[in-house]
Amino acid sequence: MADTLDVLEAVIRARRTASPDSSYVAKLTHRGRAKIAQKLGEEATETVIAAIRDDREELTKEAADLVFHLLVLLADAGLGLDDVRAELARREGVSGIAEKAGRSV
Amino acid sequence: MADTLDVLEAVIRARRTASPDSSYVAKLTHRGRAKIAQKLGEEATETVIAAIRDDREELTKEAADLVFHLLVLLADAGLGLDDVRAELARREGVSGIAEKAGRSV
Amino acid sequence: MADTLDVLEAVIRARRTASPDSSYVAKLTHRGRAKIAQKLGEEATETVIAAIRDDREELTKEAADLVFHLLVLLADAGLGLDDVRAELARREGVSGIAEKAGRSV
Amino acid sequence: MADTLDVLEAVIRARRTASPDSSYVAKLTHRGRAKIAQKLGEEATETVIAAIRDDREELTKEAADLVFHLLVLLADAGLGLDDVRAELARREGVSGIAEKAGRSV
Repeated sequence: MADTLDVLEAVIRARRTASPDSSYVAKLTHRGRAKIAQKLGEEATETVIAAIRDDREELTKEAADLVFHLLVLLADAGLGLDDVRAELARREGVSGIAEKAGRSV
Repeated sequence: MADTLDVLEAVIRARRTASPDSSYVAKLTHRGRAKIAQKLGEEATETVIAAIRDDREELTKEAADLVFHLLVLLADAGLGLDDVRAELARREGVSGIAEKAGRSV
Repeated sequence: MADTLDVLEAVIRARRTASPDSSYVAKLTHRGRAKIAQKLGEEATETVIAAIRDDREELTKEAADLVFHLLVLLADAGLGLDDVRAELARREGVSGIAEKAGRSV
Repeated sequence: MADTLDVLEAVIRARRTASPDSSYVAKLTHRGRAKIAQKLGEEATETVIAAIRDDREELTKEAADLVFHLLVLLADAGLGLDDVRAELARREGVSGIAEKAGRSV
């Protein structure tokens, strides 16, 4: 069964070229890279605030917003979750098999 | 086969209580919630910069750093990737079955 | 003649208790510390983006927004520009007389 | 008597071309615009965290760091505090004489 994050990424990719009137992703993408990056920055700040306030419900929501906008930003750059997974696996050695010797997590 | 992100999350959770000398996660966790949140904010800024500069290699690395520190922050609050997935699925209707009628992605 | 920043700070302090309907400062203050801090974070992200894009007009505007919201945040904590000036003078030795020996600017 | 902020700005401008070994400003400037912007983003995050934690001493220090790095960033773009003052005065009507009718502060 597909991972929710991969399904979301596929939806985001499909929506990029939809009508800006019908889709948030299309509207944001239409406004350009800087606007998507700005939204990512905003969600990161809100995640930080929710974490400091120790508001778990809010933190969950802001983390979801952050991941969502990260996927939109990656898609805009022709990248995706699998690139992030590959980078993390390479670096941290969490390929599912064994941990590499490098910088310990 | 386990998702790289879930494996990474499991590793992070296991490392939280390791010796701060032997593990970055343990060291950061030991410094407290505010320090973890600060690191998340830093990685978000670096992700924004890499995106604006259109440096795909750097963007991949910074996005990986951002996801890594988000997992550390969530773990510190007793939350995890599945909470984020559930929030995204609830909100965006990307449960793998159908999209909800609400706010269109 | 009074410095523009000090005049602005005085105006902000006076407006904090005005009607939220008539004043942006009053409205933002009414929404609470976290909301003011969130706005500061947003303006910082926009300042970063304008700087990377080398858009001098936009950078001037975003820097003004950043300073404005910093003054609102400081006022909310019972602090002000003079506290920042004192910290900078103490640390950097730029009291107008001589530089201190400490960390060189 | 000169304002501390203007004195600091003059010091920063003078240090930009100093040896990176002898001056923090020279070193940071040498690393480039993106690195300066990154530092600004970091200090903004730390300001947000100090504000949410209601740590007035820390907030004063982080606000000073934020202003310091904003001045370094503006200088790197050939801008300065007077450009920010002019934008604030124009927009908010706090020129020391009268408030404009526009968007109320």
